[in-house]
Amino acid sequence: MQSFIHVPPNSHFPIQNLPFGIFSTQQNLSPRVGVAIGDQILDLTAITTLFEKYVPELKNPSNVFSQPSLNSFMSLGKPIWQATRRFLQSILSHDNPELQDNEELRQKAFVAQQSAKMHLPAHIGDYTDFYASKEHATNVGTMFRGKDNALMQNWVYLPVGYHGRSSSIVISGTDIVRPCGQISPDKNQPPIFGPSAKLDFELEMAFFIGSGNKLGARIPIDQANNHIFGLVLMNDWSAWEYVPLGPFLGKNFGTTISPWVVTLDSLEPFLVNGPIQDPAPLPYLKDNIPSAYDIHLEVKIKPNNSDSFKTLTRSNLRYMYWSLKQQLAHHTVNGCNTRPGDLCGTGTISGPILEDLY
Amino acid sequence: MQSFIHVPPNSHFPIQNLPFGIFSTQQNLSPRVGVAIGDQILDLTAITTLFEKYVPELKNPSNVFSQPSLNSFMSLGKPIWQATRRFLQSILSHDNPELQDNEELRQKAFVAQQSAKMHLPAHIGDYTDFYASKEHATNVGTMFRGKDNALMQNWVYLPVGYHGRSSSIVISGTDIVRPCGQISPDKNQPPIFGPSAKLDFELEMAFFIGSGNKLGARIPIDQANNHIFGLVLMNDWSAWEYVPLGPFLGKNFGTTISPWVVTLDSLEPFLVNGPIQDPAPLPYLKDNIPSAYDIHLEVKIKPNNSDSFKTLTRSNLRYMYWSLKQQLAHHTVNGCNTRPGDLCGTGTISGPILEDLY
Repeated sequence: MQSFIHVPPNSHFPIQNLPFGIFSTQQNLSPRVGVAIGDQILDLTAITTLFEKYVPELKNPSNVFSQPSLNSFMSLGKPIWQATRRFLQSILSHDNPELQDNEELRQKAFVAQQSAKMHLPAHIGDYTDFYASKEHATNVGTMFRGKDNALMQNWVYLPVGYHGRSSSIVISGTDIVRPCGQISPDKNQPPIFGPSAKLDFELEMAFFIGSGNKLGARIPIDQANNHIFGLVLMNDWSAWEYVPLGPFLGKNFGTTISPWVVTLDSLEPFLVNGPIQDPAPLPYLKDNIPSAYDIHLEVKIKPNNSDSFKTLTRSNLRYMYWSLKQQLAHHTVNGCNTRPGDLCGTGTISGPILEDLY
Repeated sequence: MQSFIHVPPNSHFPIQNLPFGIFSTQQNLSPRVGVAIGDQILDLTAITTLFEKYVPELKNPSNVFSQPSLNSFMSLGKPIWQATRRFLQSILSHDNPELQDNEELRQKAFVAQQSAKMHLPAHIGDYTDFYASKEHATNVGTMFRGKDNALMQNWVYLPVGYHGRSSSIVISGTDIVRPCGQISPDKNQPPIFGPSAKLDFELEMAFFIGSGNKLGARIPIDQANNHIFGLVLMNDWSAWEYVPLGPFLGKNFGTTISPWVVTLDSLEPFLVNGPIQDPAPLPYLKDNIPSAYDIHLEVKIKPNNSDSFKTLTRSNLRYMYWSLKQQLAHHTVNGCNTRPGDLCGTGTISGPILEDLY
């Protein structure tokens, strides 16, 4: 499948992807829903008459797509997400003349990504961060408890997670202010106040919940994918304050996500088996189909005094021990309710393979 | 000061209190802003012309008070909260004829609490729970780490807190479903799945942030009270899943708050000195004026097989080691942003005094 919109060879946004985001332009300052294709954005508010014609089950598209967040679209549920995706692939296809040959509509409907301002894709009601990479949990556990007690007993039985701060989730490119707080350079002296010397990045992905569940209900694992809208990259900036109730000030000064939400549907070709889970998970976490995603990930940094990027780490989402579905099934097994726009981070994704960095 | 509205002698709602809440009625299903007085609710949407006349600095009162949450009113800031409170005390006063003698307006403006349905007072963006009672932290710490290491080293230097789940915060009277999850009856065997046998109540209070701070900025302790709108009672229902990243599924199946938000202004007569803080807090947490509140608290329970309430615990907010101001100053010292409607729990409030329970 190919689009009539040119897609540069190194672009992340071929017609097979079509991630959703919220953007605005100088000409129209209202944040609204768009889809990335090549180096362009298709402004969904500009093609609402086409939606009315081809996706009639999506009621009131002009209202849904003129919202400053994806929450309204997310709340419509998976059949509508899929119908929308099928329609967009069709209307963008090189063998479909309807939009392609309508010069006036094309002028209105496409915006260069370069000239657009991106916004948070959703209003995030609650943000949860999991800790689903076995290698990462082992590394952190070793730092806190030594090598022999690195992995806590419960880790292999359930996806450990904690509640994070949603107010401080920002979009890529937002400045992060180095946090201040109490530090203990000398354990025998009282703490002192100052800026965090150890400021860390953490490579994660995160999934947006599209349709939620009511308080007291739960999302069974075989239905979890119907509730997950899509994925973003996440940098879980971290300073160090941790004990005894979990990450607090060390995490809530800023968490960065990428602006484009890659839908779960578009990732289906990348489904693979995840790591073997031993011991076997309890029935409510049992899943017999491939549920990991083969997504290559890397972190590059450009130091202040340099013009070039250095690669700091490479990993792959497929290494994650607990799948997204297991995370969501566990999160709601106690009846915890979720809402459209809730975000769940995977935790740092470390892998078993030491890849060559330079 | 007395109101022309009769206030029963055991009422919590004299004219000196005037808490804010969100209510609806059978006649008008739209949730809207009201103030409790005696066993009545003053419907603020019914007296917007009086607001326009007497509180002109509160722009567009019909919009602010017809919202289904207090967020819009909260975001106006402390001077407006105070002007509103002064006006309400005046218009409800027994020596003010304006509302008292306007029979038609009174008919519209007052609703019996009995016939109203209460709603969550605010859209809660983020919810944080502190752990600010020294006695409670010591009790819990003893359970997990034994008596000698009960209080972790950092506890006396900063108000420990963690992020909670906002989606599952509900109003008093909402049914709570007993959560299911993994339990470990035998530590040498894998966990099993089942309902939580140990379901606990936790007596807390919680404060609503009225006006927030930007990401990267902070709220200094001497300005913290300008940002706190008011207080509610909270029952932090708890099951037990805790290790290693803090309370997660053990807390997020439901958290109950009371519907009426008692403003900080109305609590000023109850300011007292809190516990002596030794070691002295770092400068950013230092506070030289009375900042604790003398609020008697008790928990009563009516078992299924009984018609009468039993008192389970009595305490007082004044016992809390870290003040509300210290909690908010600490929460934002790293630049974490807060928003109107954010909620901060105090943690369970235990006291040093063993009171006679029966």
